[in-house]
Amino acid sequence: MKLDDVLDLDATAQAECLRRGDVAPIELVDASIARIERLNGSLNAVIAPAFERARAQARDGKLRGPFGAVPFLMKDLGGQEAGAPYCGGMRFLRDAGWTEKADSYLTQRFRAAGMVSLGRTNTPELGLMATTEPEAFGPTRNPWNLDHGAGGSSGGAAAAVAARFVPVAHASDGGGSIRIPASSCGLIGLKPTRGRNSFGPGLGERWNGFSAEFVVSRSVRDTARLLDATSGPMPGDPYFAPPPVVPFATAIAHKPPRLRVGVMTAGPRGDAIDGECCAAVRHAAQLIAGAGHTVEESYPSALDDGENPAAYVDIVAANTARALTTWGKLVGRPVGEPDVEPLTWRIAEHGRSLSAPALLARIEYAHRLGRRLAEWWDSGFDLLLTPTVGAPPPPIGHLSSTPDEPFRGILRAAPYGMFTLPFNMSGQPAISLPLYWTRDGLPIGAQFVAAYGREDLLLQVAAELEGIQPWADRNPQLG
Amino acid sequence: MKLDDVLDLDATAQAECLRRGDVAPIELVDASIARIERLNGSLNAVIAPAFERARAQARDGKLRGPFGAVPFLMKDLGGQEAGAPYCGGMRFLRDAGWTEKADSYLTQRFRAAGMVSLGRTNTPELGLMATTEPEAFGPTRNPWNLDHGAGGSSGGAAAAVAARFVPVAHASDGGGSIRIPASSCGLIGLKPTRGRNSFGPGLGERWNGFSAEFVVSRSVRDTARLLDATSGPMPGDPYFAPPPVVPFATAIAHKPPRLRVGVMTAGPRGDAIDGECCAAVRHAAQLIAGAGHTVEESYPSALDDGENPAAYVDIVAANTARALTTWGKLVGRPVGEPDVEPLTWRIAEHGRSLSAPALLARIEYAHRLGRRLAEWWDSGFDLLLTPTVGAPPPPIGHLSSTPDEPFRGILRAAPYGMFTLPFNMSGQPAISLPLYWTRDGLPIGAQFVAAYGREDLLLQVAAELEGIQPWADRNPQLG
Repeated sequence: MKLDDVLDLDATAQAECLRRGDVAPIELVDASIARIERLNGSLNAVIAPAFERARAQARDGKLRGPFGAVPFLMKDLGGQEAGAPYCGGMRFLRDAGWTEKADSYLTQRFRAAGMVSLGRTNTPELGLMATTEPEAFGPTRNPWNLDHGAGGSSGGAAAAVAARFVPVAHASDGGGSIRIPASSCGLIGLKPTRGRNSFGPGLGERWNGFSAEFVVSRSVRDTARLLDATSGPMPGDPYFAPPPVVPFATAIAHKPPRLRVGVMTAGPRGDAIDGECCAAVRHAAQLIAGAGHTVEESYPSALDDGENPAAYVDIVAANTARALTTWGKLVGRPVGEPDVEPLTWRIAEHGRSLSAPALLARIEYAHRLGRRLAEWWDSGFDLLLTPTVGAPPPPIGHLSSTPDEPFRGILRAAPYGMFTLPFNMSGQPAISLPLYWTRDGLPIGAQFVAAYGREDLLLQVAAELEGIQPWADRNPQLG
Repeated sequence: MKLDDVLDLDATAQAECLRRGDVAPIELVDASIARIERLNGSLNAVIAPAFERARAQARDGKLRGPFGAVPFLMKDLGGQEAGAPYCGGMRFLRDAGWTEKADSYLTQRFRAAGMVSLGRTNTPELGLMATTEPEAFGPTRNPWNLDHGAGGSSGGAAAAVAARFVPVAHASDGGGSIRIPASSCGLIGLKPTRGRNSFGPGLGERWNGFSAEFVVSRSVRDTARLLDATSGPMPGDPYFAPPPVVPFATAIAHKPPRLRVGVMTAGPRGDAIDGECCAAVRHAAQLIAGAGHTVEESYPSALDDGENPAAYVDIVAANTARALTTWGKLVGRPVGEPDVEPLTWRIAEHGRSLSAPALLARIEYAHRLGRRLAEWWDSGFDLLLTPTVGAPPPPIGHLSSTPDEPFRGILRAAPYGMFTLPFNMSGQPAISLPLYWTRDGLPIGAQFVAAYGREDLLLQVAAELEGIQPWADRNPQLG
């Protein structure tokens, strides 16, 4: 097998090659680096390479764990690595030359699982957008069509995995930021249950529990095995998700039970969505029905609540204001308006204008939304199926803001978060699966949402669909 | 056995009497009502009797569950009961004649366990004080000495259980409000792990996760069996505590393993505490050492952090401001300064003055404190032993505020929360055990604190100590 072909394998198969001795860790890492060096110029997925560190790790042979020494990338938001730069998409941190002092718990777990970090991937400033086009590092391009974006905020990670730089990459999702890029780049994107992976030691939660860290990936078995490797409480977690009854990797060996699946073919409140997204979800519904599950047009009416977006925005805005204050203190000078993108500044200004009791009202609202959503699952449904996004990946620039129109990007981004962000508010697990490509060849994901703690069900369905309509050989043509 | 003697039994034994037919549900409920009618005038523990409803429930024979039909009381803060008045210690709600429309999930679980609510118990306004002396309902007195307070904020519940009105009563703890009254009245007070009992359907959490609802009780087996009955997630909980490996009632059948216990004999930062509280904790340490456990002078240094009280106060203040807004909206007129006690108004004003990002900074601080506390447990300690309080139950009036000195009460209350509130911030379980009485005959509790999720260990130690120095026959003389 040619080394470049090994990069086409998933992490589990790459690890098997390493174990069998078909390929040495340093050869695999070098092949991954060569591929990044060949293609990253056009994609701009990796913004802070750490190739020599990766080579040293591959050579010293200390990496163990289920994956041996598989190439990996960290998103440059969360996933702190000791001694590595950290920018969170901010010019402010890039110009300050900020580096992190310690690994996060999740970073430690990825390494313990045998992942070798080759560097850090691009993200919009503070993860605020559904596209990855920060001023600080420029746009990440979609491997399926370089004129289009890779989605956000884990766009760098998704482009890197779709382009076979690495088989899986670290990602995070506070409003759809794992699922949207996965949808945009033809990958699996699982946002785990609230509290599944620790935010320690730096934080107890992010965005008041809206955010979750994990990966974008290409195979269901990689996704399940990595979730087994990363999850489980760390000391001082303020709360954590209930452990699965059996390991996720074990669960996917079994077909799911016969499921009752509700499907959404329009947006909340009946909002129109792009015809291709409608076709994408209908296709997924057909596959699910064909597998013997019951599919009905039904969804939780709480998704129609007009207050959802405003409550979401207030909480993210307050956390953005807090983040700017924190970074200013850490760097030693306050973050001012010229230091950040116009949209970031306006969002932070809004966050600063909110009172503490107003924020509590929004958190209460989010918890109430979680109760109302849970009622639908409790009424007998196992899964909700939606398009991951309400519009195909837009051209580069479409979601950018300008000083004159600072809110343009966020207004235009509405179709991209409409199906994803309610489940950040509720903390439920949700997965985007690559089951559909538009006539123009751009991927659109199908989102499955389960009840709190039920990643096992999402992974079982994902494995079943992966068997019915495999996507492993579906590959963007990048040369 | 005389009916009044049945009231001296714990709930488990009362339920056995019911099951054997020694006493009928209506007889037991009537005996409890008679005792309340005889003694409540001097104690002021029950502020909203529901005797006829309780008699009807006892008569209709529909109450099942492990406890059959055991008399019970609900604290008038949380524990909502459909059709019952709800005041939270507020004149505003008392004068509005506010009643709740639905049972809370916890209320439903108490009923499903076979508890018959005889009414609602006194609490300081919005649970803000370590004593139970609301303007709206007057002070609850300590059954061990009527000149002294019963502690707060579950003082009504604790006085009622100490006076044998009921064997257990609903309580809640956002800064010590289960443990302080339990300490003051010679009872068991277990604050469960964050997320152990649901706050639904009304809320996802209370006080940003600081508060926990459960009971004050007299026997360890009641405490364990009730925790089995009340815990476990409800639909839409934003997070919940990990289920125990075996039921708590099963865990207490086994002695704890040999434990390493750190003991605190002074307050955080070396602050002096009352000599009787010091004697109380030394006595508990001797009992523990005598049982074969290792006892050392050690505690988490994070308890010394001077920022702890201010972070705590800010979060409670923001939530108090939010609560006043919520009640104003529900009742249909804003809550103004004359509607609440001076201290409550000042706390709410402070909460309103905080920005949303400032609140987030405090929540981050609390989560960081949780991490730092966990390090001590992670370093090899199983339990922390402290006095529950830094001073014996004060005379009635000592902790009250005045319009001229609105903060007097909270300043004087410092010794009462110094050992309890850090574990509301961290979400760890903690229990107060009745192991010591002052020369004046007032109880002082010993607090044991375990790592997140380890109520099993607290209950095992409590059962061991209950065996070594039984407290069941220790009874205040009330006639």
